[in-house]
Amino acid sequence: MQQPAIILTHTQLSHNIGSTARAMLNFGLTELRLVKPLLGDKWYDKNAVSMAAGADAILDGAKVFETLEEATADLHFLISTTDRRRDMIKPVGTPKSGIEKIYDFGLSDIKTGIIFGCEKSGLTNDQIAITDMVVEIPVNKDFSSLNLSQAVLVMAYEWFQKLNTTDKIPTDLHITPDTKPASRNDFDNLIKHLERELEKGGFFTSPEKKPTTLRKIRNLFIRAQSTEQEIKTLHGIINSLSNPYK
Amino acid sequence: MQQPAIILTHTQLSHNIGSTARAMLNFGLTELRLVKPLLGDKWYDKNAVSMAAGADAILDGAKVFETLEEATADLHFLISTTDRRRDMIKPVGTPKSGIEKIYDFGLSDIKTGIIFGCEKSGLTNDQIAITDMVVEIPVNKDFSSLNLSQAVLVMAYEWFQKLNTTDKIPTDLHITPDTKPASRNDFDNLIKHLERELEKGGFFTSPEKKPTTLRKIRNLFIRAQSTEQEIKTLHGIINSLSNPYK
Repeated sequence: MQQPAIILTHTQLSHNIGSTARAMLNFGLTELRLVKPLLGDKWYDKNAVSMAAGADAILDGAKVFETLEEATADLHFLISTTDRRRDMIKPVGTPKSGIEKIYDFGLSDIKTGIIFGCEKSGLTNDQIAITDMVVEIPVNKDFSSLNLSQAVLVMAYEWFQKLNTTDKIPTDLHITPDTKPASRNDFDNLIKHLERELEKGGFFTSPEKKPTTLRKIRNLFIRAQSTEQEIKTLHGIINSLSNPYK
Repeated sequence: MQQPAIILTHTQLSHNIGSTARAMLNFGLTELRLVKPLLGDKWYDKNAVSMAAGADAILDGAKVFETLEEATADLHFLISTTDRRRDMIKPVGTPKSGIEKIYDFGLSDIKTGIIFGCEKSGLTNDQIAITDMVVEIPVNKDFSSLNLSQAVLVMAYEWFQKLNTTDKIPTDLHITPDTKPASRNDFDNLIKHLERELEKGGFFTSPEKKPTTLRKIRNLFIRAQSTEQEIKTLHGIINSLSNPYK
C-alpha cells in the first residue's frame, strides 16, 4: 500500500511545518516534502519542533526540493488543494473523493501526492496545472481561509477514515503494465521534447505566449491521465512528424 | 436550525482558543464557550487574535463560565471528545455519527454542545459523565494526541459536510466560454489530420497496427475532454512539426 506524500510549497511559517507534521502522524501519514520553504535550510527551527509535539520523525524525514517539478518527479497522481475555482479544466472533487482516488492508486502501488500552497496565496495556476485533480475543501464562503495544517489535517483525516472503514476489497481500478499512469517526469520530458521541436519549426511567434501554450498542452495530457505507454507513443509521433524522412 | 456550541474546558494556551475560533468559522460554527481558561480574563490576548486570523467575531462573542455545569445548563444533548476509552458505560461514536445526532437535534431546534478537554490531559471522567455520547476521533494509535483546535476542526468539518452534502453534489468540471468541449467532429478532423501527416512521415511501419494506434490517440484526447480551443492548438502543433520551414 502506498500512502500519499504531503507536499508543502513555499511555506512561510516554520510552525505550520511543525503542525503539519503532527497532523500527518496523527493520521498515519509519514512522507513530507517541502518545496523551497521561505526560511531555506533554517525551516527546522524550534517553532517547527514545538508545534510538531513529538512528530520529530516526520520532520527528520522531510525532503526539501528547489522546485515542485523535482518534488513530484516520481509521483504518478497529484492532487492540488484550493479554496477557489480557477479558469482551468480539471476534475474537481471533495476531500473524500480525492482520497478515494489516492487510496485506489495506493492499493495498486502507485505513488501519489497532495500539494498545498503557501499560507498567503495558496497555489498558483502553474502549480495547479501539473496536478490531475483539484480538491476543494468545502468551507464557509464568508471565511474560507483554512490554516495550512488544518487543510492538511482534513486530507489526512479522510485518508485515515478511508483506511479504517473500508473492507479492503480492491476497487475497479485495474492497473496493468499497459495502464500504468505516467510519472510527472514522463510528462516533463514529453513537454520538453515537444518544445524543442516546436522551437525549431518556429511555432512560438510570440515568446510571451509560450509558457501558457505549453502549460495548456501539459494540462491536457495530465487531464487524460496518460499512461507511460501513451507517452512513448506521443514521443514517437513527435519524432515522426518533425523528422519525416528518417 | 440550531448549531452546536463548542465548549473548551480549562484551555491552557490562548493561541489554541484563537485557532479554534478560526476553525469554527471556517466551517460556519459561531458559538464558543470557555470554561475557566488558564489565563483567566487575560485569555483574549494577542496570541489568540493572531491565530484567529480574522475570526474576531467568534472571540468577541465567546462566553466564559466558571464551571462546565454552568456552561452547559441550557443545552440538551452533549458530546464529549476523547482519544481513549474510559471505564464508563456511555454510547461511543465516530465524529460522523456524533454529528448526525447533533444535526438531527438541531433540525428539531434542540440546543447541543461538543466539549473538548484541556491540552495536557483531555477531559476528566467527571466531565465525560455529564455528556450523552463520547466521540472518539480515529487516530494513529502510536501518535494519538491531536492538537486541540485540530480536534475541533474535525468536528466542525463533519458538521459542514453534513449541512452541505444533502443537496449539493460537487460538479466534475468547470465550464467557461473559453472551455467549451470539442465536438466528436472536431476529434475526427484532428485524428485525420494527424493520420495524414504520420502517413507522410512513414510512422506506420506495420499497417495492421495503424487503427489501434489511432484509436489510442483518439481515446487519449477524448479522455482529456479536450476543448475546441485545445483542438485548434493541436492542429497548429501538427502543422508546425510537419512543415517546420513554412
